[in-house]
Amino acid sequence: MKRPRQGLDLQVDRTLALPVYQQICRRFKTAIEQRHLHSNDRVPSIRALAAELKVSCGTVDLAYRILIDEGYLLSRGAAGTVVSPALPPAPDVAPRRANNGAIHAASVDYEGRERKPLLMGLPALDAFPRKTWNRLVGHRLRTSEPARLGFPDPTGDERLREKIAAYLGISRGVSCLPEQVFVTSGLRNSLELILSSLARPGDEFWLENPGYILARLFLQNTGLKLVPVPVDEQGMVVERGLTAAPSARFAMVTPAHQSPLGVTLSLERRMALLDWAGKMGSWVIEDDYDSEFRYQGRPLPALKSLDRNDRVIYSGTFSKSMFPGLRLAYVVAPLSIAAAFRASAYSINAGCPYLYQAAVADFIAGGHFSRHLKKMRLLYAERRMLTERIFSAMLGDRVRIELQPGGLHMLLQLARHEDDVMLAERAHAAGLALHPLSRWYMRGKPRKGFLLGFANVVTEKDAMELATRLRQALGG
Amino acid sequence: MKRPRQGLDLQVDRTLALPVYQQICRRFKTAIEQRHLHSNDRVPSIRALAAELKVSCGTVDLAYRILIDEGYLLSRGAAGTVVSPALPPAPDVAPRRANNGAIHAASVDYEGRERKPLLMGLPALDAFPRKTWNRLVGHRLRTSEPARLGFPDPTGDERLREKIAAYLGISRGVSCLPEQVFVTSGLRNSLELILSSLARPGDEFWLENPGYILARLFLQNTGLKLVPVPVDEQGMVVERGLTAAPSARFAMVTPAHQSPLGVTLSLERRMALLDWAGKMGSWVIEDDYDSEFRYQGRPLPALKSLDRNDRVIYSGTFSKSMFPGLRLAYVVAPLSIAAAFRASAYSINAGCPYLYQAAVADFIAGGHFSRHLKKMRLLYAERRMLTERIFSAMLGDRVRIELQPGGLHMLLQLARHEDDVMLAERAHAAGLALHPLSRWYMRGKPRKGFLLGFANVVTEKDAMELATRLRQALGG
Repeated sequence: MKRPRQGLDLQVDRTLALPVYQQICRRFKTAIEQRHLHSNDRVPSIRALAAELKVSCGTVDLAYRILIDEGYLLSRGAAGTVVSPALPPAPDVAPRRANNGAIHAASVDYEGRERKPLLMGLPALDAFPRKTWNRLVGHRLRTSEPARLGFPDPTGDERLREKIAAYLGISRGVSCLPEQVFVTSGLRNSLELILSSLARPGDEFWLENPGYILARLFLQNTGLKLVPVPVDEQGMVVERGLTAAPSARFAMVTPAHQSPLGVTLSLERRMALLDWAGKMGSWVIEDDYDSEFRYQGRPLPALKSLDRNDRVIYSGTFSKSMFPGLRLAYVVAPLSIAAAFRASAYSINAGCPYLYQAAVADFIAGGHFSRHLKKMRLLYAERRMLTERIFSAMLGDRVRIELQPGGLHMLLQLARHEDDVMLAERAHAAGLALHPLSRWYMRGKPRKGFLLGFANVVTEKDAMELATRLRQALGG
Repeated sequence: MKRPRQGLDLQVDRTLALPVYQQICRRFKTAIEQRHLHSNDRVPSIRALAAELKVSCGTVDLAYRILIDEGYLLSRGAAGTVVSPALPPAPDVAPRRANNGAIHAASVDYEGRERKPLLMGLPALDAFPRKTWNRLVGHRLRTSEPARLGFPDPTGDERLREKIAAYLGISRGVSCLPEQVFVTSGLRNSLELILSSLARPGDEFWLENPGYILARLFLQNTGLKLVPVPVDEQGMVVERGLTAAPSARFAMVTPAHQSPLGVTLSLERRMALLDWAGKMGSWVIEDDYDSEFRYQGRPLPALKSLDRNDRVIYSGTFSKSMFPGLRLAYVVAPLSIAAAFRASAYSINAGCPYLYQAAVADFIAGGHFSRHLKKMRLLYAERRMLTERIFSAMLGDRVRIELQPGGLHMLLQLARHEDDVMLAERAHAAGLALHPLSRWYMRGKPRKGFLLGFANVVTEKDAMELATRLRQALGG
């Protein structure tokens, strides 16, 4: 316990405007950044430090939680708390980036939100046609009536709903009326709308295992009974759902590219799922989050296009096809429940800002959307191959890359029996937004690996730099 | 049943692209608009019409539900369904406005969202400095880095949080750090953040009776035990809360201008509330939704400014101080729970679009925000007096106007014993967004009256036209 205290001036000053817990945080950060404290150094216990500083245990606890959250400290449970073994390589390597994020949150969070390279689900921000977009937004900004500053339509802007319906008909084989389309601020908001329209407490809900982690975190707090259904090379194993919970009220699937394994739901499974839903009067939620991007074979029509009995609720997003900062997504409800969705939208939603909705409608109407998607398919195909080539060459002994036929990420399987969560945290600390595959499993023995977003890997130099950083982070 | 069918060609055409239920809707709308069907005419029962058209009962039911929702038909329960007794006066008086809204939804919905005059809570859209605003948004649009197209910070843009903290310190006596400020998309999102950070199922929750209707609708679905606490001329009657549920975990209040009665929470009650919260370790949620506008006496500091024990969670919004289409609000969490809020924000929120957040920060930093509020205080004082004068003169025999010391709405008490819900629906049908006071009561004998937003009543001519319309809608 001697060495850590060197250079760590832990006096608190109650006359400062800065609260005591923040003073503690600052002192630790400074000491760690200036290397007065080193990786794996144990820090004092909460009780000991509180007594020494004459502050409450709660104050020290809060400071430690923040430091852990930001990646400076690591809790080893009963073994105490230590300085993080995975500190950023040096204070001058983008310390802000490495430090301002919630590593814990990011590690369970697909969207990550850190502005770190290799974040899965993030489209190529450098390739978005910003000039065109800015022109369209600027035009709406100048020409919209003052009434548009008022409350937005909670079901979505009418013109945008028309454009979405037209796009889905042409591109995804989904035929629907604008009245069936509901604009939301993202998948979680879409799920909220669906569940508030249809769900009853205790309803059984099939979800893919592994499956989209943020959806699961959201669903876990809804009072539904979640039924994990395994995924094989043909997608969700529908028969396993039938055995486990034949009268489930909902099933949520990612038929185009299973999230995260990337497989496609086979035609046989699609028919089995629709058949079950028709017989049981259950609802299938199709999360078609990134079907726009496919590099092998032809894009598959949506599951919804096979839906003769109107049991499929379709969910799409502009986060991948445009950019996530838009916060715009949508749900298509079967006609029989469109009125219920409308009532729910009025009672749970306050609507999304008009400006972006209007500009997206213009972007689609002007043909920019389909042009952009076409360009991105080619660009992503290139970046995917580039990333695969460089990472295979430089990390081939540590990971095996599984290319998926579509989407914006690839799967890196670990060659050794290693803990992907621990390794991903190390990669995070080194400034890489890799996601550990095992966290996407709700139950059972998880596969281990990394989920790596390739859409923003622009040059060979980028790829080599990133692969080098990952190699270093993985260590021995 | 004869007359209604005249001019109502109810054949359906299965070869049309338009779904059958929509065909039924269209026929009814045309027949009603062309006066082939008249107010109070009974329409066929669902079963009879379904049999006649050889369609399913579900199809007719859907069509009727839409027609009821849009105000064409009115369900009288066992007495059958009739053509609405409160049809718009004539097809050429803005039929789109009168028809495109969900009257039912609007009638339970404070925010209304219809673009009808007299909507409460809507600030003066004509007086918002759009040029300045457009310049700021345009600037951010052109100069933001591409990375800003990515996922926004789920806790809110850092600079905006700083500006909010500074504003609250100066204007509301609320001293807080940017780390305590969380940006949300509106009050419901704020409540979601608060509850997901702190609430446990079954927690007791005091709320004002009458109180903000949308908050109640949201809270009713959260598994909390709602405890309505009456409001008198000093605001929430705290002693009644103490009797009904002394160990409640939450109390939500609108201390500046009680929503909807407009009274101010007295100092004695403020102290009693804080005292209770401190002793019980409960949380007080201060909804400070429109305190910026006060016309008599000096603006009161926030309840939060008296909060020595850190039990008050402060909630504010830009919907009234700027405009509701922004969809930006905020919560200030006490330091002791800021870390929990942060974790919640990462798990439930996907963040708000960066562009508007950055522009609001610029709007505050450039001094435009405080200038705008100053101007609006004078303007609203004028519009408030104008509205009061004209409506008193023209409707003095039917309503008694209660002016409130602040806020954007006034209370119209009914002079006779009449049903405010029914009268408000008539006013809605005549294109006025009045809200019935009795709907804001959760329990007990409600006061009856209308809540009327005056912020967009610009000229004397406007006021007279609106008062005339209301007079006509009220009838006899």
